[in-house]
Amino acid sequence: MWWISDYHHQPTQTVHYGNKYVIGNGIYGYRGTLDEARAEDQVGLNISNLYDGLPGKWRESVNAWNPFYTEVYVQGISLNISTQSPTNHHQKLSLKHGLHQRRTTYRINDKDITIESERFISMHAKNTMALRYTITASDTLDVEIKTGIDTLIWELNGPHFKEFEHLSANGIGITGSTQECKHQVTLLTKTTLDDTQVVKDDSIFGETKTIHLTKNESFHFTKIIILDVNKPLEQTQETLTNQFDKGYNALRKDHQHAWNALWAISDILIEGDDDAQHALRYSIYHLMILTPDKDKSIPARGLSGQVYKGAIFWDTEIFMLPFFLHTNPRAAKALIDYRIKTLPGAQAKAKHYGFEGAFYAWESHENGQDVCSDFNITDVFTNRDVRTYFKDKQIHISGDIVYAMWHYVNHTNDTSILLNGGADVIFEVARFYLSYLKYDFTTDVYEALDVVGPDEYHERVNNNAFTNKLIAYVFEIALKVASHLKTQSPTTYTKLNEHRKIDTILETITRVHTKLKAPTKTKSQVIEQFDGYFALEDTRVDVLKTRLVHPQEYWGTSHGVAYPTQIIKQADVVTMLSLFSSDYSTDIKQANYDYYHPRTEHGSSLSASMYGLLACDINRQDDAYDYFMKSASIDLTGKSKQFAGNTYIGGTHPAASGGAYMLALYGFAGLKTSNGTLSVQPRLPKHIKSMQFKLHYQEALYTVTITHNDTQIKKESTHE
Amino acid sequence: MWWISDYHHQPTQTVHYGNKYVIGNGIYGYRGTLDEARAEDQVGLNISNLYDGLPGKWRESVNAWNPFYTEVYVQGISLNISTQSPTNHHQKLSLKHGLHQRRTTYRINDKDITIESERFISMHAKNTMALRYTITASDTLDVEIKTGIDTLIWELNGPHFKEFEHLSANGIGITGSTQECKHQVTLLTKTTLDDTQVVKDDSIFGETKTIHLTKNESFHFTKIIILDVNKPLEQTQETLTNQFDKGYNALRKDHQHAWNALWAISDILIEGDDDAQHALRYSIYHLMILTPDKDKSIPARGLSGQVYKGAIFWDTEIFMLPFFLHTNPRAAKALIDYRIKTLPGAQAKAKHYGFEGAFYAWESHENGQDVCSDFNITDVFTNRDVRTYFKDKQIHISGDIVYAMWHYVNHTNDTSILLNGGADVIFEVARFYLSYLKYDFTTDVYEALDVVGPDEYHERVNNNAFTNKLIAYVFEIALKVASHLKTQSPTTYTKLNEHRKIDTILETITRVHTKLKAPTKTKSQVIEQFDGYFALEDTRVDVLKTRLVHPQEYWGTSHGVAYPTQIIKQADVVTMLSLFSSDYSTDIKQANYDYYHPRTEHGSSLSASMYGLLACDINRQDDAYDYFMKSASIDLTGKSKQFAGNTYIGGTHPAASGGAYMLALYGFAGLKTSNGTLSVQPRLPKHIKSMQFKLHYQEALYTVTITHNDTQIKKESTHE
Repeated sequence: MWWISDYHHQPTQTVHYGNKYVIGNGIYGYRGTLDEARAEDQVGLNISNLYDGLPGKWRESVNAWNPFYTEVYVQGISLNISTQSPTNHHQKLSLKHGLHQRRTTYRINDKDITIESERFISMHAKNTMALRYTITASDTLDVEIKTGIDTLIWELNGPHFKEFEHLSANGIGITGSTQECKHQVTLLTKTTLDDTQVVKDDSIFGETKTIHLTKNESFHFTKIIILDVNKPLEQTQETLTNQFDKGYNALRKDHQHAWNALWAISDILIEGDDDAQHALRYSIYHLMILTPDKDKSIPARGLSGQVYKGAIFWDTEIFMLPFFLHTNPRAAKALIDYRIKTLPGAQAKAKHYGFEGAFYAWESHENGQDVCSDFNITDVFTNRDVRTYFKDKQIHISGDIVYAMWHYVNHTNDTSILLNGGADVIFEVARFYLSYLKYDFTTDVYEALDVVGPDEYHERVNNNAFTNKLIAYVFEIALKVASHLKTQSPTTYTKLNEHRKIDTILETITRVHTKLKAPTKTKSQVIEQFDGYFALEDTRVDVLKTRLVHPQEYWGTSHGVAYPTQIIKQADVVTMLSLFSSDYSTDIKQANYDYYHPRTEHGSSLSASMYGLLACDINRQDDAYDYFMKSASIDLTGKSKQFAGNTYIGGTHPAASGGAYMLALYGFAGLKTSNGTLSVQPRLPKHIKSMQFKLHYQEALYTVTITHNDTQIKKESTHE
Repeated sequence: MWWISDYHHQPTQTVHYGNKYVIGNGIYGYRGTLDEARAEDQVGLNISNLYDGLPGKWRESVNAWNPFYTEVYVQGISLNISTQSPTNHHQKLSLKHGLHQRRTTYRINDKDITIESERFISMHAKNTMALRYTITASDTLDVEIKTGIDTLIWELNGPHFKEFEHLSANGIGITGSTQECKHQVTLLTKTTLDDTQVVKDDSIFGETKTIHLTKNESFHFTKIIILDVNKPLEQTQETLTNQFDKGYNALRKDHQHAWNALWAISDILIEGDDDAQHALRYSIYHLMILTPDKDKSIPARGLSGQVYKGAIFWDTEIFMLPFFLHTNPRAAKALIDYRIKTLPGAQAKAKHYGFEGAFYAWESHENGQDVCSDFNITDVFTNRDVRTYFKDKQIHISGDIVYAMWHYVNHTNDTSILLNGGADVIFEVARFYLSYLKYDFTTDVYEALDVVGPDEYHERVNNNAFTNKLIAYVFEIALKVASHLKTQSPTTYTKLNEHRKIDTILETITRVHTKLKAPTKTKSQVIEQFDGYFALEDTRVDVLKTRLVHPQEYWGTSHGVAYPTQIIKQADVVTMLSLFSSDYSTDIKQANYDYYHPRTEHGSSLSASMYGLLACDINRQDDAYDYFMKSASIDLTGKSKQFAGNTYIGGTHPAASGGAYMLALYGFAGLKTSNGTLSVQPRLPKHIKSMQFKLHYQEALYTVTITHNDTQIKKESTHE
């Protein structure tokens, strides 16, 4: 239950396995490719929250050079899985300890040669990585080992390192600075191999050594890797020396301890369904390897590469934050602090579009700049870029951040974050929405026109129900926070008010709030996703599929098959009902679930969990279970869209992992927190006997155990 | 100068000549195809303002059966231009008298046989048409004549007649009713041929006769045709008897007299440029054959077929009305009355979209219903229909109608039209705009969001300068009309006010009027076409052409090459400056002309004349002349778009004809009318020596003569 593994490896699986077997520690991620893999196999050592851009290309997260590169030659034949068929192959990943292993046997001239490797990115010492490599032969044999740093990087919009320096004083290293931002990246490696020859051919900078193998006796060596960004070279060199001296096993032990500590709080035990247990652990694993550093956040494709530019989306706030809130409040705070830190970027974006306040980036980079392109889709028929409106119209992003922040404050009781920039974010988002709204003086309502909701297939719609709900919510929170500050921190309030004229905002909110356009509802309580949605062609996903002319064509924009219909990409009204569950009656939930369920493509990995949560709310546990498994196993099965138009969008889906986690806790366990008390209301799928999990809530740690008939909430400890 | 003609006929020219040689009398139009042509040659006897629709198809104007069908056989060989090459061919059209003629000689077995025909649709007796057919051979010869009604109709969205009755009591006739509206259409014909045999084969219902021709002696016969809609059969039969008794020559004489009377007022004499003279006469001819019947209007493709559904667009009010105002005020009144009559349709459309007042149809049918499709373009790559926004967002149409109405009132001094429904239209349009506007309470401005301006390549834009200008204009006119009524017809005002609450509208107008969003201007006074236009890619038309993947692909909608750029389909800001010429300084006109001129594709036939008018205003006569010739000769050369995406859009371009007329009078002559006085300010292209024209203005008829140095305005007569 703690391992995933595969026994076959077809070249067509290389990209999928690269995602599936990814390892990481929140700072760095390394794709699950094999040791001998090269750039064309999409090897990636991805650096979180570090970005660079070249003129005329999309800005993106930086991939470092590949320090794990290791290849073995037998009589000139490379033991490379992409050119040589193995007699035996096994790739596996320890979810418990973030250890990647492979074992591959080749038969060459009637001799069996087995290569084994293990690698990890330390969860304890976050700039440290390590590799252990073993070779065994069924007979006496000379093999040549080549190991080093592959300087040819798989990059979508690179090269980010135009020039770099080879270092060979103590081991093999590369240092270089990124082209745009001049981030100095230093990668040092040292192996236990002695008497090697330095190689510098092709793109490989490394060492080579010929080994004489004795029958059935393994040869092994280890490699210690240090990757630092913007640190003096000496410091990185010193770290390498220290870590190398500690040695592989000791580093591995520290790494495992760190993982054990994380799992001690993060694990969820599921009794009665091994598949669910396994998929959920796999999801939690994916979240753990993304644990963010101080005031950093988590990219939508995790650390699996540069897709979506390594940028931060609403995925983090809405789908991943709950996991960290429950298991690692410090990490949760980092996510919130990231948005506080990037407020100036959001203010600049609002100003750019002629608005006031904070319009957060749809795809956020380090300073909150929006790196989303106005042309996100490449049309498959013309190969031309098509204007999309994710960046300039998906205004719900600002409200998502306020939603997350308020969730954080309530869950942790940490109101200090409001004083340290949080309140400013909330008021600035409220100010943004006020400046965005238009007043229809004929009907006396305020409207949010020309927006894009979660369902991106319908661009530029008016009064998206979800968006309007979030706007109303932001107004409420702004009023609450103002009254909190006025009583609890009057000087902070006075200062902020002087600086930002909060009183005026509050006054306008009071005027506007109750006149926000309410969504149309049918007699049966179905909420219209946006103005005019019900008038669109009412059809089914399968029908749309028959209208496709090209398998990869994009369903949205005015030319897409979904655009003129009621078919939506992902949960939209349903997201609203799931996030604001307590504001809606079961009748409404049921009606909307039944209506939107058959009209949703689930073309986004954010969709299933929201449907699953709502399914739990209306006691459709079978449906909920299907959505849960879909969400939890998306990166296990690899069943996700790889292209939007001609644009590659593959990688891991941490929002689906986070969604699976939410579905387990908020859905199956019916976890609710309110005013300092924590409650559960089990809605377990029939065959699941029990669930057990821990969570931080406010000042304490709890253990919750539920069965179909019984619930137990135990306070484990109170934090200092 | 009074004829157009061609001496060759390639099958590829059949459609173009069908447009070029069209004849008509405002009620009926007949395409310039040859006598023997059939449905596949796009023969069309189009009925103005008569519409019908089949379920699931576009509604469109009705084509009647073809009564001119005549074919001659020599030894079994058909003298048909599409299967038999003639040794000599001549097709011509008298612009002076609307007479279509052809003369074609075939050599068969060393004998020359010449067929000649002349046809007209009477301008005097509007339900009467006639054909004279002549056959001559170079040697003694038997020929078979076949003539009758071809019941196979060229229809885009038919068949509109599913069943019909053959009548053969007195001549050959067909009567039948349209499928949707049950309009009874009766077509009766009678020839001077005697002892014929009735034929009823294929789709032809007619008669046949074998003639023995003597060497070089012509045989001829005539056919009189009566076409009535919704008349008792007996009445049509009686008309046929009467007209047949009068005979071809008498009918032709009456027809010519009617044309002479029209030309006496409509002609414009141009000295020094035969090409311009010819093209302008050809344009005037096209307008004359569209002279509307009482409270009817003119379709955008005239009577050349069913393209654009035979519907009425803004083309009529903005581009064609001036001709009729000057030459035929009764016809001008019909155009205005058509909009008064169709007010309920406009009110229904406004209501449908959630607005108040009158939102006129983008493509108007008989009751003002909007027959524009939401999916006007068929994508060439996917063959799927694409959502377009002409119908629901091109709100300037309502303002165009008010503009035209006010122009009519000022020009004719006929204020009675205001009392008879005109004022109601104006107030209802004002009410529509008020309900359309949104208030931006942050900036204290009123905005017209989400519209389409004349440049249809940029859909769903905010604050289109032209549209906002029209809205402001409508508000002004509403205030003026209200004050006029209050003093001149207080009881009318009181009644209208009771019915429509005009006072409330006026009050709101007063509040809103001065706060309408003004367009952005650059330092050099270039007016931004809509919010954000300047931020689009600045490129050139030629560059866009290199980006096309398919020659027929549509340039607009979010996938089109023009959409993300500043390239526009047609005059937009320039239309505003031309229509509201006196509101803008020469500097502004110059700056905008220079800016938009190289950024305009002129993909619409409405574009050239607006550019030409502005060019005159800034003394660019050479440019103006080019635009004039382009506009005036569009249907002579056939150089116009035949497809938008995969949608066929060919036919005649009366708005371009009207534009050429406007350009001659308002442009070259600099004609201005204001407060009862008429002035000219000649801006003739260098090589044009003089221009002379007549026009009705208010209660009088004037003759205007201009040269480069001299102008003469002579009052000819005062109307009773």
